[in-house]
Amino acid sequence: MRIAIIGLGLLGGSLGLAFRENDTHEVFGIDTNLEHTHLAKKLGLVDDIVTFSAINTMDVVVLAVPVDKLPMLAIKVLDVIGENTLVFDVGSTKEAICDAVRNHPKRANFVAMHPIAGTEFSGPKAAFSNLFTGKVNIICEQECSATVQLMKLALLMKPLDMRTTYIEAASQHDKHIAYVSHLSHISSFMLGKTVLEIEKNEKNIFDMAGSGFESTVRLAKSSPATWTPIFIQNKKHILTALDEYITNLQLFKANIAADNAKELKTIMKTTNHIKTILKK
Amino acid sequence: MRIAIIGLGLLGGSLGLAFRENDTHEVFGIDTNLEHTHLAKKLGLVDDIVTFSAINTMDVVVLAVPVDKLPMLAIKVLDVIGENTLVFDVGSTKEAICDAVRNHPKRANFVAMHPIAGTEFSGPKAAFSNLFTGKVNIICEQECSATVQLMKLALLMKPLDMRTTYIEAASQHDKHIAYVSHLSHISSFMLGKTVLEIEKNEKNIFDMAGSGFESTVRLAKSSPATWTPIFIQNKKHILTALDEYITNLQLFKANIAADNAKELKTIMKTTNHIKTILKK
Repeated sequence: MRIAIIGLGLLGGSLGLAFRENDTHEVFGIDTNLEHTHLAKKLGLVDDIVTFSAINTMDVVVLAVPVDKLPMLAIKVLDVIGENTLVFDVGSTKEAICDAVRNHPKRANFVAMHPIAGTEFSGPKAAFSNLFTGKVNIICEQECSATVQLMKLALLMKPLDMRTTYIEAASQHDKHIAYVSHLSHISSFMLGKTVLEIEKNEKNIFDMAGSGFESTVRLAKSSPATWTPIFIQNKKHILTALDEYITNLQLFKANIAADNAKELKTIMKTTNHIKTILKK
Repeated sequence: MRIAIIGLGLLGGSLGLAFRENDTHEVFGIDTNLEHTHLAKKLGLVDDIVTFSAINTMDVVVLAVPVDKLPMLAIKVLDVIGENTLVFDVGSTKEAICDAVRNHPKRANFVAMHPIAGTEFSGPKAAFSNLFTGKVNIICEQECSATVQLMKLALLMKPLDMRTTYIEAASQHDKHIAYVSHLSHISSFMLGKTVLEIEKNEKNIFDMAGSGFESTVRLAKSSPATWTPIFIQNKKHILTALDEYITNLQLFKANIAADNAKELKTIMKTTNHIKTILKK
């Protein structure tokens, strides 16, 4: 299959590497960032670099650009592809792109996908072929996609060994992901910011930072270019999640201030329940 | 050397295992929790279990109990030890214990220590011998400790291969650690609480939780029995840290609400600086 990947960052680049392991695929890269196209070619993330005008020759088109660019790009791609071409995205929000293509004559060629995979790094250099291995892959509004396209996608993704799950409503996806992904990033960024502000002497941070701090602040290394549009596009759900998070922090703070050991213990014990869920 | 460890949880148990690797040491355990003494013996964390009355026969006494019990215990131990016995603690706060022993006639026998090591697990079963390897070990108010005791401690800890650092003022230690350790735990606990509250259907959490959520929420698995007294004892600094953290969250939230992409990017880019600090 001839596969075009638009956007050669961590996700697009890693997909390119993974797809190239199958010799029957030819993988083409498209990116407005010339440094990224150069690197993608050099690092073997794609077989070749092409321009957007080659889109109509592809069997598969992957949309891997920041989420604010996705809705317009999806329409632009659907406008020019052939009858049988599969188009899918890998964005962290699904409502905006699903709304954008809802009435497009080629809606059935499109699959709204969100692989729950990533690292705190970004760009072509961060790409690696088994980024997706064993991870969850969410597909939204699958009833709007043609069965033949869903099957083509399943076949294409099979070697990546992901666990596919379906969330019919894109808005439901965006609400849930606001809590389990987007809120984690904000809490981590703000933790990093708070500690950097107080610790003028950086050596102290390093000396005292245990593995607990490192893991909690890891996401504060993430790319502002990727995450800014996600936060803004999903703001309806993120603002609610943030309100609840801040309320919980204020409640916990009040219990510390009041020396309320019993209540603090109860809250933490209840929250320890996260152990059993994440271990499954 | 005859070493007594009071408190056979993650830290006390791991120290026991590490010290027992040296055949010239005999390691004795003391704990009011009979299940812990039983397990500690069975798992080989100590050579034997003794009662508090054996303290005066020891060369070294390690205090590894929750921080609210440390000040009284330190006094009780210093009251009965021999002239040459080394006493040190492994607590996550240093001001309360340093204040408690400040005017004790045997103050010089005591070293206030904080190994920056731990996991989200607790109890004797969580103990492992190289928990401390390569980690930072903080010593506070070293001028109040006898040089001979500091040297004895250095010799005892040498096989654990830690990097010792000194913070003269215990209050300074407690302030810094409120930011780089205690605040991380609270942000993680409250993240876990917020997500658990919204996600009544636990399967959704698991399905959508990527490695980002897992690492950010890891500390929410920590022991309430360990952390409740830490939060209360260090509340002066923790309340300030929490205020700054909440203010940062509110500011970030306002920028999301206002679609202020430029400011969000600037904040995240500045915070990305944490990369270079933690990589050192």
